[in-house]
Amino acid sequence: MNSVEDLLKGYRRFRKGTYAKQAALYRELGEGQNPRIMLIACADSRAEPSDIFNAAPGQLFVVRNVANLVPPYQPDDSLHGVSAALEYAVNVLKIDHLVIMGHGGCGGIAASLEGEGNPEIGEFVTPWVRLLEKARERVVASGSVNPQFALELEGIETSINNLMTFPFVKRAVDAGDLEIHGAWFAIKHGELHWRNHQTGRFEVIEP
Amino acid sequence: MNSVEDLLKGYRRFRKGTYAKQAALYRELGEGQNPRIMLIACADSRAEPSDIFNAAPGQLFVVRNVANLVPPYQPDDSLHGVSAALEYAVNVLKIDHLVIMGHGGCGGIAASLEGEGNPEIGEFVTPWVRLLEKARERVVASGSVNPQFALELEGIETSINNLMTFPFVKRAVDAGDLEIHGAWFAIKHGELHWRNHQTGRFEVIEP
Amino acid sequence: MNSVEDLLKGYRRFRKGTYAKQAALYRELGEGQNPRIMLIACADSRAEPSDIFNAAPGQLFVVRNVANLVPPYQPDDSLHGVSAALEYAVNVLKIDHLVIMGHGGCGGIAASLEGEGNPEIGEFVTPWVRLLEKARERVVASGSVNPQFALELEGIETSINNLMTFPFVKRAVDAGDLEIHGAWFAIKHGELHWRNHQTGRFEVIEP
Amino acid sequence: MNSVEDLLKGYRRFRKGTYAKQAALYRELGEGQNPRIMLIACADSRAEPSDIFNAAPGQLFVVRNVANLVPPYQPDDSLHGVSAALEYAVNVLKIDHLVIMGHGGCGGIAASLEGEGNPEIGEFVTPWVRLLEKARERVVASGSVNPQFALELEGIETSINNLMTFPFVKRAVDAGDLEIHGAWFAIKHGELHWRNHQTGRFEVIEP
Repeated sequence: MNSVEDLLKGYRRFRKGTYAKQAALYRELGEGQNPRIMLIACADSRAEPSDIFNAAPGQLFVVRNVANLVPPYQPDDSLHGVSAALEYAVNVLKIDHLVIMGHGGCGGIAASLEGEGNPEIGEFVTPWVRLLEKARERVVASGSVNPQFALELEGIETSINNLMTFPFVKRAVDAGDLEIHGAWFAIKHGELHWRNHQTGRFEVIEP
Repeated sequence: MNSVEDLLKGYRRFRKGTYAKQAALYRELGEGQNPRIMLIACADSRAEPSDIFNAAPGQLFVVRNVANLVPPYQPDDSLHGVSAALEYAVNVLKIDHLVIMGHGGCGGIAASLEGEGNPEIGEFVTPWVRLLEKARERVVASGSVNPQFALELEGIETSINNLMTFPFVKRAVDAGDLEIHGAWFAIKHGELHWRNHQTGRFEVIEP
Repeated sequence: MNSVEDLLKGYRRFRKGTYAKQAALYRELGEGQNPRIMLIACADSRAEPSDIFNAAPGQLFVVRNVANLVPPYQPDDSLHGVSAALEYAVNVLKIDHLVIMGHGGCGGIAASLEGEGNPEIGEFVTPWVRLLEKARERVVASGSVNPQFALELEGIETSINNLMTFPFVKRAVDAGDLEIHGAWFAIKHGELHWRNHQTGRFEVIEP
Repeated sequence: MNSVEDLLKGYRRFRKGTYAKQAALYRELGEGQNPRIMLIACADSRAEPSDIFNAAPGQLFVVRNVANLVPPYQPDDSLHGVSAALEYAVNVLKIDHLVIMGHGGCGGIAASLEGEGNPEIGEFVTPWVRLLEKARERVVASGSVNPQFALELEGIETSINNLMTFPFVKRAVDAGDLEIHGAWFAIKHGELHWRNHQTGRFEVIEP
């Protein structure tokens, strides 16, 4: 897919294919959405949540940004895109599950490990991945043999911890109305790993 | 899809279905991504870009937030999620096309029109959709018979204008290396409207 | 409906149905008409103004021609059908609103895009749709992905501009006695789009 | 119906009523029109062909102008709206029946009888109804007790004769591919009169 023509061709395939089968569902969704699950995933072109979970339209409320990060709660008047989506999902849609999904070979994670000083991404990516600073230090200190992989998982822990700093998230979790999950997708093998609530370990899901 | 079990079932359908057909592609994508197109879309569960454009893994670099908004260029050290994704897409991936995609019945647009004072979304959504303030004023002043729809389109104009305030975006556009597009998806009829560069009008795409 | 018999059967359905309910209204209308709204629509069999606006007898003064076109003001002694209807509606009926209504899949618009040289329609349709020549050039120059749709809208702009070349129309508009509107009807989805005075954009009307 | 709001309310009634029943028909008509019957009627708000014949969308190709007039064949490059619609209906749609429908209390007929010199309609209506000049002279000469009614019928004769001056119309009629009819509608009583091919007399249709 390289051009507008390709996008429009893709749209026509969608119309002849999926849409033709789901026209009634789309008509119904025209009335409103009621997803039960929110996904915070990476913008990476290779880890598409609705593909990986074979989700139908209307099922996943999806935020995507560099390295699937959630900043901590910071109630001021400035712009907080992820926080706005969180607020909408938890307070308006009242979602039941929130999944932070990372993936292998994440460029944002690589940028964090690479450290600062890269002019190509110095203005915005560098400050953005500072959200991973403490996690990065832990990974480096741990002498991991695969810091990229280790930080991809540590980053998910960081976002989960940041999530809990939002009063409305904590309230929903404490009330048993919201469950928070972690997942990691191995692109090369299309392998899904799911975070164990108790141990915090990521376990391979049998296909 | 209401539970973790549903998500894992979905993953298993993916493995038996799409993935089985795309295993070789995923193996190759394990080496790295090279999407030519970036999409900035809404988190809404009903307007899934990779579905609508029938995109394969690796083809679309996708940011999703409330109301598919792009803030203006603001180079300080604070967190700018969309700007970080933009910087990565334009400077690192060197994408050729950037599409802002809105959709019908957008909750963020409705929140902007509803105005301030809703406690459920007052902490983050309200400040976030202030990005639409000028567009909202234009729409209201225009006496539109369908302000929701009008602001969905005006919001795309706003994001396109904000995009051009990023020096690295403007540079790429001026150099002919990057094209910026607008699209709007009508959920009920699964109908795609595409923005005409010259007229700024959105035109229905024949399915 | 294929025959005179079908037409007469339809007339009898009208007598037993609508007319039976509206006999008193028809009796009153026998004394004279006083519509407040004029519609200039296409002759196309699929876009019937009184159906689309669920209008009662006496409510819409309707001109219908190929591609709902209004020629510019040309005061000579030759025949000007649309101009005559305009003059009657504005000067005699003193209508308050004038709506130019286009629609999807318009054959006259297609004829304009197809260009000249089609013998089937070369004697009258071809010269008639030359009224769209400048609009057609704009659409072609704009590189529209959907020139048919784009020209359907541009044609409405053209007719609105031509309307304003009639001194008696301009006078009524300037005096605030007459409002001019644009509308477009999507046959397939029965969807009405209404032109926004300020932006010139067509906005979907929520059913 | 006095305002845009009324029109939009009417559209919403249409959506909830007729359209809801005819959605499938409209969807099908989205592919193209194939009416078998063309109607040339008056712009008068009280004589709505699709009402009077209880026609469904797609059944009638309708031209409406002041006094339902057809000019004679005049093949030059200037604008001929009725001729363009005729050419399209006969050569492209290949309609089987063409009905000229007049009605009682026609303002265009009254304008013809009133004669010239009325400034309100002097620029366009007066030249337009000169198409009726010979018919008017016949009516006046006949000493009719009801010249308005007499000219409404004579005007239909005139249009039928003018129709036959179009080579493509005459050809279709001679080939037995096209039948031409005359009808007249009495608004006050909702009464349809149909022209007898042989006698040229108009006969009341039993409801």
